[in-house]
Amino acid sequence: MTKGKLYLMPTLLGSETWDHVIPAKVAELAINTRYFAVEDLKSARRYLRKLDRTFPIDKSTFFILNKNTLPTDLSAMLAPLRNGHNVAIISEAGCPGVADPGADLVALAHQRGDFVSPLTGPSSILLGLMASGFNGQSFCFNGYIPKERKKRVFTFKDYEREVSKTGQTQIFMETPFRNNNLLEDLLNECLDATFLCIACDLTLPTERVQTMTVAEWREKAFDLNKRPTMFLIGKPFAM
Amino acid sequence: MTKGKLYLMPTLLGSETWDHVIPAKVAELAINTRYFAVEDLKSARRYLRKLDRTFPIDKSTFFILNKNTLPTDLSAMLAPLRNGHNVAIISEAGCPGVADPGADLVALAHQRGDFVSPLTGPSSILLGLMASGFNGQSFCFNGYIPKERKKRVFTFKDYEREVSKTGQTQIFMETPFRNNNLLEDLLNECLDATFLCIACDLTLPTERVQTMTVAEWREKAFDLNKRPTMFLIGKPFAM
Repeated sequence: MTKGKLYLMPTLLGSETWDHVIPAKVAELAINTRYFAVEDLKSARRYLRKLDRTFPIDKSTFFILNKNTLPTDLSAMLAPLRNGHNVAIISEAGCPGVADPGADLVALAHQRGDFVSPLTGPSSILLGLMASGFNGQSFCFNGYIPKERKKRVFTFKDYEREVSKTGQTQIFMETPFRNNNLLEDLLNECLDATFLCIACDLTLPTERVQTMTVAEWREKAFDLNKRPTMFLIGKPFAM
Repeated sequence: MTKGKLYLMPTLLGSETWDHVIPAKVAELAINTRYFAVEDLKSARRYLRKLDRTFPIDKSTFFILNKNTLPTDLSAMLAPLRNGHNVAIISEAGCPGVADPGADLVALAHQRGDFVSPLTGPSSILLGLMASGFNGQSFCFNGYIPKERKKRVFTFKDYEREVSKTGQTQIFMETPFRNNNLLEDLLNECLDATFLCIACDLTLPTERVQTMTVAEWREKAFDLNKRPTMFLIGKPFAM
């Protein structure tokens, strides 16, 4: 029997319509899968029903894969592969394994010699980078910004230094309900001439991506509260 | 009159069928656009004809946007926005502005206050990261690996140090016809225990993604010649 594949299955970034961000063949693959490792049961089911209103939720198996999952629970999620079934990892938003759970299950699959295949879908990191106008030949995603004030300021300075030294774009984020806080700190602590890109509500009808200097942002800041946002510090790219 | 938008329009990574990697609404947007800034004229036209056999090439305007484009040529490419027309940037493969031209035109658009919107499509950097099983909370794309042997070895050591110190995944690439060369150098110079992911022919029927230690790769290396490949050094992720 041919072994199944472990698919990395992207999902929506918010309430957009699925055919804006998910290729038809990726949706088809999701609809034909019956084994899932999901970050959140409710939102994974909602997504599958969005792709196909008649999706047989009750005939499917869902494993929970999040930060509370024990390493010893992982191998059961890969067991269907041996019997020729595909397994799809679906995280809460965007691409599994990128600032979202999934990588540990993928690591185990490689260790077992299973076949791993990544599917195309939206990633706010990549979309933010594309639309920033910053250097996309060299960039760094740093994940969540430190919460502690002193560390946070030190981190900004670090990013500014890296950008001015090597031109490498620095990408980071914050929990959405603290976005305005982060923006305030950035505007208080960064240099006037530092270029900041704010990529907000990506792929949604309210999407807004803007790159300006910190001095300009101080005049034109807008409300980011609870809006999914990617922050980037970089150098406007000239070829 | 409403101003047009500057769209970052992804394209295929190779000869795959478009509905595997391009969402239907992104294809529709491409088909309804008449102004393009393209890295390569021939492949952009081929792509548009793939999306729609009857695409009116002759009624469309194509600007060339590559490393030979002069900064003074950029503003003409944004002129259609003022008249309410959209402009789409299309690069040779994958996502414009990410290891591909486009960022300088986007930077100018931000400077002018134009509306910039990134669209979803395949990126071999992101797909490779998703499928690597490495840390996706912190990663760095380094672009092309240095050609000069000494610098190259120094770079490998640098990546190994960074991974063992911070766990940050290091992503890099090489011109496809030199891939086997890079692999040989990696296997000669990296530590036995270093984890290397090779993500080859992503989204194509011949796709193969594998993560192993350098010691294991020495036994199981396969031919990468002229196959588009992403290389990653990282730590298999455990939550």
